[in-house]
Amino acid sequence: MDLTEDQLLTAINRVLSGAGPEVVVGPGDDAAIVRPGSGELVLTTDAMVEGVHFRNDLTTPRDLGYKAIAVNVSDVAAMAASPRFALCALTLSSSIDAAWVVELAGGMRECCDEFALSLVGGNLSGGEKVSIVVTVTGEVVRGRAVRRSGARPGHRLVVTGTLGGSAAGLRVASARSWSDDERDAIRRYMRPTPRVGEAGVLASHGVSSMMDISDGLALDLSRLCRASGTGARVELARIPAHPAATPEEALGGGEDYELLATLPDLDAVEGARSELREAFGVSLSDIGSIIETGLVAVDENGTEGPLMAEGAIAGWDHFR
Amino acid sequence: MDLTEDQLLTAINRVLSGAGPEVVVGPGDDAAIVRPGSGELVLTTDAMVEGVHFRNDLTTPRDLGYKAIAVNVSDVAAMAASPRFALCALTLSSSIDAAWVVELAGGMRECCDEFALSLVGGNLSGGEKVSIVVTVTGEVVRGRAVRRSGARPGHRLVVTGTLGGSAAGLRVASARSWSDDERDAIRRYMRPTPRVGEAGVLASHGVSSMMDISDGLALDLSRLCRASGTGARVELARIPAHPAATPEEALGGGEDYELLATLPDLDAVEGARSELREAFGVSLSDIGSIIETGLVAVDENGTEGPLMAEGAIAGWDHFR
Repeated sequence: MDLTEDQLLTAINRVLSGAGPEVVVGPGDDAAIVRPGSGELVLTTDAMVEGVHFRNDLTTPRDLGYKAIAVNVSDVAAMAASPRFALCALTLSSSIDAAWVVELAGGMRECCDEFALSLVGGNLSGGEKVSIVVTVTGEVVRGRAVRRSGARPGHRLVVTGTLGGSAAGLRVASARSWSDDERDAIRRYMRPTPRVGEAGVLASHGVSSMMDISDGLALDLSRLCRASGTGARVELARIPAHPAATPEEALGGGEDYELLATLPDLDAVEGARSELREAFGVSLSDIGSIIETGLVAVDENGTEGPLMAEGAIAGWDHFR
Repeated sequence: MDLTEDQLLTAINRVLSGAGPEVVVGPGDDAAIVRPGSGELVLTTDAMVEGVHFRNDLTTPRDLGYKAIAVNVSDVAAMAASPRFALCALTLSSSIDAAWVVELAGGMRECCDEFALSLVGGNLSGGEKVSIVVTVTGEVVRGRAVRRSGARPGHRLVVTGTLGGSAAGLRVASARSWSDDERDAIRRYMRPTPRVGEAGVLASHGVSSMMDISDGLALDLSRLCRASGTGARVELARIPAHPAATPEEALGGGEDYELLATLPDLDAVEGARSELREAFGVSLSDIGSIIETGLVAVDENGTEGPLMAEGAIAGWDHFR
């Protein structure tokens, strides 16, 4: 690094957005001070580690900065809450120069501006590998947060958008040329879109449980069912695969950051679907239903089998 | 790792403290939901990276967990605020086993219990090196946060406790036997004490600026002076060196997490000093004064020189 820590912090802070009136003390002091809203406080943190979540030769620092914020915003959205403030703890290796860091901060600012949150503080360290740990706070009207645990037998199981695009994007990223679908898949991998407004629409239609799909539909659905004490029955043909994705990627690929939710009945699905289409141009797919117990996959012939075959699937376990 | 991510999370959550009534949604959902207090919200984050901030052969996971929380609590204290909630993003290498992680979580819980905060969420990733990034939120009565920028010429410069102990502890940690002073120094390195109550006492005596000393007195004082637009005059003989520390360690060693603050006059120093001694048994040393400009060191003969000689610094820059 060609700058001291203090010089680099000054360079980063210059890129960051001017803090709004609710920021009392921004970056540069021991801690940030902000004015909370009147609702409940939402807290989430997520890490992006070089060699695990990204490769420096496959991504730009600007996209990386954007994504580091976006994945946290997605977690706030999955509670049906609004993001407010972000912090970033950045570990930099000796191969990183100041221009890279300023680009990273620029990408963070882009995402913060898009979703109206302020980056109010952070921390810089050295290390062998780059890692970017972002914490985002949000706000939600008291009692209105949507948990994973509210699914009940008979509820419909829905997902926003398409699945598997991010996994397909990672698969094709190192190719020399791409189809339009592949290009879109790469964009989904590099710059996922947190579904903040979409989560609000689902909440207004009586969503009973919700989470974002970060580790793949199959694994994340098993988590939702465990939290709710239920099972689920998924019709494989109704899973909205991204056009560049394989069926395996649609079922098991991580990092799509679409919403997985349950709605009480088909009327609620219809209502939410048309509002999502009109307001955001985002699809809502009814992929099955909540049942008492078990994770069941139904293929196009109506044959039932386990959703997660032993050793076959599925999803992103960080220690496998 | 002998467990899946979900199994490990379950094991960690079992160690963590039962959440208080202000925790609406604890670990296990997309984000935590908590009830904020009525004051302003304090936000800070800090990283501990293997090979940079700690060595696995020199520290226990329990001490490491304690310290990862403590260094963030120290930042909240330095704003004269109270810590409330913590999040932890943990990156684990393949050499780490589940018992290590559960010990780490136990150390986090110890510190959380001691300073009355709740660990409400986190994130697990794999990686080549262990890193522990903690975010702590706190609360402070509106308008009462103490910044670095309020020092004015004529104010007295004070520090709590002793300095250099942590650096001395790191220096002697790999020895085979220790004196009592060295043993205490090692404890300061392994388990620093955030000065939460002490910061409150200083605030009640009209402190004009405050920060915690994480990167060494000389470097952190230069930051306080820059934020305040002032200089400082330090009497070297009055720096309260830890009995195991060299003068260089007392001036430049990091990670003591004592408070550096300015008070308006000697009466305020006397008042704060006696209250700190009675309430906490912690000393307060008057080490100099705020001046218009420059960082000046005065030795025992009254000879003045620069506090940070070119090339001779003094403090912990993470990129040097």
